[in-house]
Amino acid sequence: MPAPRLSAQVRQESPPLSDKVEAPISTVTPEKFRSVFRNHPGGVAVITADAGQGPVGLTATSVISVSVSPPLLVFSLSELSSSTPTILEAETVVVHLLGADEIDVAKLCATSGVDRFADTSIWRRMQTGEPHFTAARFWIRGKIVNRMSAGGSTLVAVEALEIIAPDRDDPAQATRAPLVYHNQAWHALGEHSKV
Amino acid sequence: MPAPRLSAQVRQESPPLSDKVEAPISTVTPEKFRSVFRNHPGGVAVITADAGQGPVGLTATSVISVSVSPPLLVFSLSELSSSTPTILEAETVVVHLLGADEIDVAKLCATSGVDRFADTSIWRRMQTGEPHFTAARFWIRGKIVNRMSAGGSTLVAVEALEIIAPDRDDPAQATRAPLVYHNQAWHALGEHSKV
Repeated sequence: MPAPRLSAQVRQESPPLSDKVEAPISTVTPEKFRSVFRNHPGGVAVITADAGQGPVGLTATSVISVSVSPPLLVFSLSELSSSTPTILEAETVVVHLLGADEIDVAKLCATSGVDRFADTSIWRRMQTGEPHFTAARFWIRGKIVNRMSAGGSTLVAVEALEIIAPDRDDPAQATRAPLVYHNQAWHALGEHSKV
Repeated sequence: MPAPRLSAQVRQESPPLSDKVEAPISTVTPEKFRSVFRNHPGGVAVITADAGQGPVGLTATSVISVSVSPPLLVFSLSELSSSTPTILEAETVVVHLLGADEIDVAKLCATSGVDRFADTSIWRRMQTGEPHFTAARFWIRGKIVNRMSAGGSTLVAVEALEIIAPDRDDPAQATRAPLVYHNQAWHALGEHSKV
């Protein structure tokens, strides 16, 4: 599909620094930008896919809902992640929204250099073929409908085709704590964290 | 600017439901999609702008970092928000990443039908003109470099021009709790919420 090149448009829209009218008080270095967003919490998701060469999975805190009709979500993939080429090649993905009970899956898919699918007891295939971990509060199976290059990353837009909520018929489970990542630590939300 | 029409591509890419090979366990309704993402936590931000007709501000949990070089962030704006037209028209915005201490600003900018800038003691103008609330863990002043229509929303890509971290020279302040929104409730992260 012809994906719009955000990076090209960014360049088109952004004049070189010397052309800018304003003189920024502080230059934004990659280190500073990274440090600020390390301090911005995010709900934890794991994204899995298989483009024909075997399953891949990565942990992401960038999954956001952008539209309910059609049901669209977006996430960001760093070019540095080993799973990125496969996810960009895949037609469909599974987005797992994780609870604190699923921290092991989150850590597994955030660890470099390990076979994230070695333990065959923790994942399976959907009827449609996509690999997914069996532990999650929600799984969203979706079709990739757009890919937009943005600096060193790619934004991926996904239309939800199917939502599976294992907890939906179990009110006790439905209220269990979601998992949040912040400043290189894992957190669980609940009554204890309410303001 | 010629924004790519993500919505058009979604329609083009998505076959009608009857063409699907699989029989989804559940059809994804707007209500179900909304319910799932209500259960996906997000760090809380307030976005302010002024396109020449006065300041606007809205609370968002969709701010994500997508690239550090160039420093790019993305957020999603619903067409239902009263602040959206102004933010889409503006050239620059201020993104505030909020701590639990700033819950009042988050609530103010999430409340419909109020003048969010009536209390002139809580906001001011940057030297470059943008309105911003004075309470925040970090402010990012940025230039809008792309706008992408996506269903009932618009994805906005912003290049950071300037980062202001009031706490950066105060270690005691730098560790204060960030604010998270989940399932229609506000949460503070800290030692108490660590897994």
